[in-house]
Amino acid sequence: MALPSGDSSRPDNTLAVIHTLREHGPVARIDLGALNGISAATVTSISAELLQQGLITQQPPKTGRPNGRGRPKTLIQLNPQAACVVCIKLSINEIQLVVGDFAGRVRHSEHHAVSTLALSADDFAMMLEAKISAVCTQQLDGFQRLAAICLAVQGVVSSQSGTIVWSPALSFRNAPISTRLADHFHCSVLLENDANCIANVLAARSAYADCANLVVIMLGYGIGMSVLINGVPFLGANGSAAEFGHSKYQPDGALCACGRRGCIEAYASDYALYRAAAGQLELTATDSAHPSEQQMQALTQLALTGDPVAQRIYAEAGRALGVGIANVMALFNPDLVLITGSGVRGFEAMQTAMHAAIDDALVAELKGTTRIESCAWDRDMTCMGGIAMTLQATDTETLLESQTARKA
Amino acid sequence: MALPSGDSSRPDNTLAVIHTLREHGPVARIDLGALNGISAATVTSISAELLQQGLITQQPPKTGRPNGRGRPKTLIQLNPQAACVVCIKLSINEIQLVVGDFAGRVRHSEHHAVSTLALSADDFAMMLEAKISAVCTQQLDGFQRLAAICLAVQGVVSSQSGTIVWSPALSFRNAPISTRLADHFHCSVLLENDANCIANVLAARSAYADCANLVVIMLGYGIGMSVLINGVPFLGANGSAAEFGHSKYQPDGALCACGRRGCIEAYASDYALYRAAAGQLELTATDSAHPSEQQMQALTQLALTGDPVAQRIYAEAGRALGVGIANVMALFNPDLVLITGSGVRGFEAMQTAMHAAIDDALVAELKGTTRIESCAWDRDMTCMGGIAMTLQATDTETLLESQTARKA
Repeated sequence: MALPSGDSSRPDNTLAVIHTLREHGPVARIDLGALNGISAATVTSISAELLQQGLITQQPPKTGRPNGRGRPKTLIQLNPQAACVVCIKLSINEIQLVVGDFAGRVRHSEHHAVSTLALSADDFAMMLEAKISAVCTQQLDGFQRLAAICLAVQGVVSSQSGTIVWSPALSFRNAPISTRLADHFHCSVLLENDANCIANVLAARSAYADCANLVVIMLGYGIGMSVLINGVPFLGANGSAAEFGHSKYQPDGALCACGRRGCIEAYASDYALYRAAAGQLELTATDSAHPSEQQMQALTQLALTGDPVAQRIYAEAGRALGVGIANVMALFNPDLVLITGSGVRGFEAMQTAMHAAIDDALVAELKGTTRIESCAWDRDMTCMGGIAMTLQATDTETLLESQTARKA
Repeated sequence: MALPSGDSSRPDNTLAVIHTLREHGPVARIDLGALNGISAATVTSISAELLQQGLITQQPPKTGRPNGRGRPKTLIQLNPQAACVVCIKLSINEIQLVVGDFAGRVRHSEHHAVSTLALSADDFAMMLEAKISAVCTQQLDGFQRLAAICLAVQGVVSSQSGTIVWSPALSFRNAPISTRLADHFHCSVLLENDANCIANVLAARSAYADCANLVVIMLGYGIGMSVLINGVPFLGANGSAAEFGHSKYQPDGALCACGRRGCIEAYASDYALYRAAAGQLELTATDSAHPSEQQMQALTQLALTGDPVAQRIYAEAGRALGVGIANVMALFNPDLVLITGSGVRGFEAMQTAMHAAIDDALVAELKGTTRIESCAWDRDMTCMGGIAMTLQATDTETLLESQTARKA
């Protein structure tokens, strides 16, 4: 097989071009060169090859624009059909399956209610195989290849060994899932923590571009966190770093879903808020351990419209969150703490107490210049991040496969 | 001025040779090559240049060894007189001055009782200038140059701006000290957190060589921490990261020296232990806010010999330390937490409660494989680390100065 032509940095340049096209959408060749610091000749040669491999397409220049000046430029863009990723998001009693195309856009999304906590490790793997197979059969027509599967999981994962170490969605632990799915579907499998996926999406936004140390906190049924240091998720020795929800607010405090006491999650998560409210407020009869989105919205409304009991509950959650964030500020000294997740619906009812707790906890020199902001939640965000991370991780593979296919 | 001879990686190779000689002591040329992955010819040429610059010396081969085989090797070593560093350690009411030679060894050490908390920013700078000048006059004879001054400070420093942001040893804040000392002594000044200096010494030990994520906790009058990620201190956005002593054990808990409540330090530091004991035990009349080493040893002895009140106080300190370490484990997932500092004298009386608190706080999956160990304290350790970091930071400068001096 012939070696790729061009200079020794050519594969890196090709990857850079693909990443730029994914980030910016359609771009003229001349701008591609400028954005990546490579010559016009190199861009021309790379784009010719990518065109031939079917990884990019050309947009004919628009003509007849009344105010257009100069010769209109031909834009090139990723061929969205060149490859796709199936991303599965695992939460408690819910599975989301999303198909993303080669340009990183969501093409299909479906949610399934699944009693995840009732599954054995084997049932869980078979359930995933069946759901992924179904989505592939229905949705993958027209795509040149399935680049990879991404599994975005609430909890502690070891991406390296492909093992779900501990997830609140599962009643078993240390599940080696990546190899099983990779063998079944004959493709790469990326296992990621859900908060890292979200952080990947947020870090790409221009508003947060100057944050070398970015902490993203996800409020919701549980509480997740991702710490990005220079854009890279900080994983620690075994991948369980940035576990914020089970850091402590109050030793010997409220019971947490993990079985221990006093975790931040035991005060500020959906189940903790609903549990505290269930004893004191008239709420729809429910399984208070797993409140629905509608129930959480109703509870939040009570706090926001001045119900004193609901206000007290959200204030206590805000205090717990504030003490936890103060510890994160003391230990990580981040540029920005960004709060999101479905639970951000209740942030307005928590934030006064949260800021008061941070001010009580830390002297000004330790608060430093860290900003604390909230950010609107989008339920597709986790999978969008998972798809972006997976495409980036498998671009080299896609490139090689396309070269081989073209030469065969 | 002529450019250095040799290939483009030559300056890096020269620095690598200097670092290896500092780490290993006298080494034969052939081993220097092997340790750094460079050719024998390059080692020969580098060592010839370093010899000429007076930065290394040769040890004549030992002869007459009864069991020696083959031709004895000439060893080369750093010339300890080639440069020196003055390191000042700032603690509450104490200044330590240490002179380190070019090989990184301590050549002189002196301690001064100074009422640091009574000093104004200007008095503090003048006091340092006077003490450093005196040590230079008395100790620097025979050294070719003063490479740099290192200031190792308990508290939050910004190494980049050369500012002591906040130290428990000083009653003022945001003191820009590095520029002032650099102007006065016409040399580089490195400002470092004391725990980072200690961590530098410990990380170099072979016992901890496999710890990519290393947390070092310093117990003593205050409580310091350093987090090394792949050998590099994690500083955060403004240099105040890894602030463990003021992370929280108990919201609204015991009063801390920082003015806030519930910090780990307010339970497990020397002053906190002594304060708790002063109300309940017969102790030597003292300024309980600043107990002496002798007083702390006496209190520790009470706990270790079974005094129930002292035992309770150390157990509570151990619990606070354990909850704090549990948070550090959840957030950083380190390979090893190493506990040292003068306060490690009381670790035996704390450790049972500390381990129990960690077990109470974290599920097994979050405790992971992190080891927790203590490590004997040596009062020169901070300055040894400061000297090592300073020499490494200024080796390029020393090299250039020596080249210039030789060519002049």
